Amino acid sequence: MRIPEHIGIIPDGNRRWAENKGLSRADGYKSGIDPGLLLFKMCEMAGVKEITYYGFTVDNTKRPTDQIKAFTDACINAVKILSNENASLLVVGNTNSPMFPKELLPYTTRQTFGSGGIKVNFLVNYSWKWDLNYLKRSKCRSNNINNQIETYDVSRVDLIIRWGGRRRLSGFLPVQSIYADFYVVDDYWPDFKPNHFYEALNWYNDQDITLGG
Amino acid sequence: MRIPEHIGIIPDGNRRWAENKGLSRADGYKSGIDPGLLLFKMCEMAGVKEITYYGFTVDNTKRPTDQIKAFTDACINAVKILSNENASLLVVGNTNSPMFPKELLPYTTRQTFGSGGIKVNFLVNYSWKWDLNYLKRSKCRSNNINNQIETYDVSRVDLIIRWGGRRRLSGFLPVQSIYADFYVVDDYWPDFKPNHFYEALNWYNDQDITLGG
Repeated sequence: MRIPEHIGIIPDGNRRWAENKGLSRADGYKSGIDPGLLLFKMCEMAGVKEITYYGFTVDNTKRPTDQIKAFTDACINAVKILSNENASLLVVGNTNSPMFPKELLPYTTRQTFGSGGIKVNFLVNYSWKWDLNYLKRSKCRSNNINNQIETYDVSRVDLIIRWGGRRRLSGFLPVQSIYADFYVVDDYWPDFKPNHFYEALNWYNDQDITLGG
Repeated sequence: MRIPEHIGIIPDGNRRWAENKGLSRADGYKSGIDPGLLLFKMCEMAGVKEITYYGFTVDNTKRPTDQIKAFTDACINAVKILSNENASLLVVGNTNSPMFPKELLPYTTRQTFGSGGIKVNFLVNYSWKWDLNYLKRSKCRSNNINNQIETYDVSRVDLIIRWGGRRRLSGFLPVQSIYADFYVVDDYWPDFKPNHFYEALNWYNDQDITLGG
């Protein structure tokens, strides 16, 4: 079976999940933490080499305060939990903003935890505009754009899995996602089931990879 | 019904269609011309304001010579046919390359044909790297990236429809596609049917548009 080297995770649907349970919208985020760890372990077992989690974006920080606090806390907890695993971990996003949680500043240079292993990127206060604006400062004449953006240390994505039924990228790593295959799970992220992941891998295995050729 | 203002068209599957018919792979492209005109007329009737066709890319020009000739000819014909309609037409792509057909150079500044009407963008010898590299020359400090790329005259895309079953962008306008909803038709592009378009519009009508918020 052909396993994607790098999987992008868009864990959407936390608020809709909470509403369906009669909870407040902000209550959905903490139920997204356990699925994140389970998915990490499944990727590890499957031999995936790199994972990127879409934590939260600059766009998201226009939401009500209680939601901002809830998704920020969930990201802080998720990163701390991942730092107990075997991973080469990087938190990446716009740190020049009060919305970037100071608890995650120590993770903004890549560090090896445990015996290393999977490369894990966690997008926190990420913005595609912030990412691409870095090109304006580039002195490099090469058109290898992947090396000239803020997220230069994040590789090309092979497979994006999005939970929550929406079929759009919502600003997720536009450069690395250029050739990515895009798999959508209708269930909300807190309802993560191992089969979502296996079905995505099976689907990916049937795709013909051309990289635009 | 909520109609997308700007639809991106990825007309994929011409080669697979030809192979299934026992034709040579290059023979698939000319059967993609009529669907392009039909779709244009359907967009006109539906009140769509802008359409972008994914003609061919710099990546595609690595293919065998007979295929390159076939898709280039199909693009030339398609643009000429569209110039007989009511449209504000622009061909956009890397003209500093021998792969850009000289027949289309007159269309690389936007022109109004007939009574104008829909804005039509036709990507020819397009490359996402070429598009984004323009940022390096930008003197503008604003982070409104859409105005600082080669395709600054192409608006944000609301709905992308891709024929041929593949669920990926393959380099299609990465900046304008950031928030686009992505609809995939399994049939190959030369097998275009009006219902593909209506089903895509119905699906789009049910989507919740958040622009990342």
